Amino acid sequence: MTNTAVYTAFSQGALGQVLIDRLDEAAQFSEPGSGVTRLFCSQEHRDVLPLISHWMEQAGLTPQLDAAGNLVGRCSKAQAGEKTFIMGSHQDSVIEGGKYDGMLGVALPLLALEALKREGITLPYGVEVVAFGDEEGVRFPTTLVGSKALAGSVTPDQLEAKDAEGTTLQEALIAFGCTPKDIPHIARDPAKTLGFLEVHIEQGPILEQRNHAVGIVTALTGIERHRVKLSGKAGHAGTTPMDMRYDALVGAAEMVLAIDSVLQSTDNLVGVVGKLNVHPNAVNVIPAQVTFTVELRSPDANIRQRGREAVTAALQEVATRRSLALDMENTYSADAVTCADWMMASLEQACAHADQPAERLFSGAGHDGLAMQALTDIGMLFVRCKDGLSHHPDEAISAADGEAATRVIMAFLQQLGRP
Amino acid sequence: MTNTAVYTAFSQGALGQVLIDRLDEAAQFSEPGSGVTRLFCSQEHRDVLPLISHWMEQAGLTPQLDAAGNLVGRCSKAQAGEKTFIMGSHQDSVIEGGKYDGMLGVALPLLALEALKREGITLPYGVEVVAFGDEEGVRFPTTLVGSKALAGSVTPDQLEAKDAEGTTLQEALIAFGCTPKDIPHIARDPAKTLGFLEVHIEQGPILEQRNHAVGIVTALTGIERHRVKLSGKAGHAGTTPMDMRYDALVGAAEMVLAIDSVLQSTDNLVGVVGKLNVHPNAVNVIPAQVTFTVELRSPDANIRQRGREAVTAALQEVATRRSLALDMENTYSADAVTCADWMMASLEQACAHADQPAERLFSGAGHDGLAMQALTDIGMLFVRCKDGLSHHPDEAISAADGEAATRVIMAFLQQLGRP
Repeated sequence: MTNTAVYTAFSQGALGQVLIDRLDEAAQFSEPGSGVTRLFCSQEHRDVLPLISHWMEQAGLTPQLDAAGNLVGRCSKAQAGEKTFIMGSHQDSVIEGGKYDGMLGVALPLLALEALKREGITLPYGVEVVAFGDEEGVRFPTTLVGSKALAGSVTPDQLEAKDAEGTTLQEALIAFGCTPKDIPHIARDPAKTLGFLEVHIEQGPILEQRNHAVGIVTALTGIERHRVKLSGKAGHAGTTPMDMRYDALVGAAEMVLAIDSVLQSTDNLVGVVGKLNVHPNAVNVIPAQVTFTVELRSPDANIRQRGREAVTAALQEVATRRSLALDMENTYSADAVTCADWMMASLEQACAHADQPAERLFSGAGHDGLAMQALTDIGMLFVRCKDGLSHHPDEAISAADGEAATRVIMAFLQQLGRP
Repeated sequence: MTNTAVYTAFSQGALGQVLIDRLDEAAQFSEPGSGVTRLFCSQEHRDVLPLISHWMEQAGLTPQLDAAGNLVGRCSKAQAGEKTFIMGSHQDSVIEGGKYDGMLGVALPLLALEALKREGITLPYGVEVVAFGDEEGVRFPTTLVGSKALAGSVTPDQLEAKDAEGTTLQEALIAFGCTPKDIPHIARDPAKTLGFLEVHIEQGPILEQRNHAVGIVTALTGIERHRVKLSGKAGHAGTTPMDMRYDALVGAAEMVLAIDSVLQSTDNLVGVVGKLNVHPNAVNVIPAQVTFTVELRSPDANIRQRGREAVTAALQEVATRRSLALDMENTYSADAVTCADWMMASLEQACAHADQPAERLFSGAGHDGLAMQALTDIGMLFVRCKDGLSHHPDEAISAADGEAATRVIMAFLQQLGRP
């Protein structure tokens, strides 16, 4: 290990501060409003790319926008087709999200590579760092397109997914300057891929509770999403007697509470109705239609299935009792995936080198690893976040924790080259 | 009563068929598209005036377009300044509305007057029938200009209201051939006005349920509207434990049900949560804020007040229990207007003469009577409409019900002249 050498290039504390400064700068590429809003193939996405490209160049990587909207930085060994280790995370945010969810996992490995480069340390394998275009699935009712493209698992129907304005993902990619027809060609060769590692804020309260800067992820939650359409009958809100209404919003309200009740009463199952739209949405018209989303997450496939069955039964009961038409469509589904044992062990060793306690924890959120696991072994390092808060403008990490995580990754990368 | 004489002029069934035919003819003056679209001071408004003028002349009235865009038909007694009873309704429609909302209340009293005239029956007081230019408030963000002009309550700022193209109401009236500066001069003298009666389709299902052709309106509803803002805390929907959430949508769902419960359990109170917006409205984010509207309507100010108090208490209880911030703002309020006792009694008597059951009901919608009540006593007769449907191309009444209502008005007008 060459920790001492690294410390001479970036003095103690400097790496963390550089990381925080870079993430502050990236956060300025956001729609107006509170926090960070940067959606897939948006103007803000386009505008942040030169900054990430600059980080990549500083790290000795050559940046390139790929067919699926990922910005990929490759070292010369990776470009030459040598065996390559992939790192990265997503550039996109939720609406009014924070500075760290996603972008931390782009900026941090690039900073780690830059620090190694400044120390003159050459890694004996190829590296690439990817800023995936889309992980949050906010703009399109599909997600992980970037990491699926690397894993070779993008299906044609995913490219037909439409945003709220009716633009398909394929159209958005073309308008963004990408060539979605080439997506099949950017799938990585598993035989030439050493693994995939993502650094991410925890987005939960466990590391803060343990007072640890970082944690090693054991598995990623399984997720499913549904789109529910509930149809009643519009009517004049002044002249239709209360007992003769088919108010889709009153029905939807009962469903939201029924879903919450299933979730509150089931261990190892979480979920949310995050999106809900009323039609025609006028002050004096009885709501004719409500559409809403249901998301369920569990580390255990059986628990998630039983949760789905309970939710479905509750929705059907409400719809039948209220004579509302119910249409429920599964829009997304991803099984839970396990991190590779060797990756967890190696991260543990790297934590020891960087003087960081290294406990293991489970990820309740989905990440690009869900898709990358089809390609290669995956690992994840979590970084403590303030108040466990994420998807919120107040999302925060400390410079000290950022520094600790960067040094863990530097140690990890150096270990990886050794027999 | 001279019912027998009337029947000789229009045989049983003929009046209703004439009424339906006339309304079909009037409906042809519409913008292209489904149903009837005839806005205030539009080409369609201009084009329908000769037809209504013809009906007026057939009824023995002299038609004249007034300063506010109303077409007014006056009998010679009314023109001579004798005490006058006013009837009428609005010529305008909503976009893609039906044939009966408004125009029924123009065609029907004219047909009743024509039938009386053909019987040689002379009324011992003046009558006028008004086709008000605007009641729906579709083209301009103001409404009831015609009836307010008769009541002397048009304010100068109303004439400055602009349509979607930026044309002011004043400019539209001038282009239509009216002289809006004369509006103050067309206010009627309360001392010379006997009352105002409007015939209108019910726009609700009550008469259909009762199997009655007509109903006597007791009051035009009072309305209040509120904007509710409920604030919780956004958070990652996968990593925030269920028992640590402040989900504004789950809270709002409970509120929507609490409001519905107050409304379902209170007689003579209706209402709706018609508009609801979730923020940030993303599939995987715990809703941070929900805004929604609450509208309450009642003919009885005390009932409406108690309803508001019950709703407010329920919302506060939910907000407190769920640690959500509640902000409720009253955005609109209009008192109920009561129909005159003598008008209701007289309509009841007229219904008896026309062999029609005459139950009372309140109007959940607003009408020209809201403005006319400032001038004189008001009354309203509702006519059953198919499936309670209105503001829709399928809006319909039967010829038999039209006939029944016409005969009620004929009887009413003859009674009115007697001591």
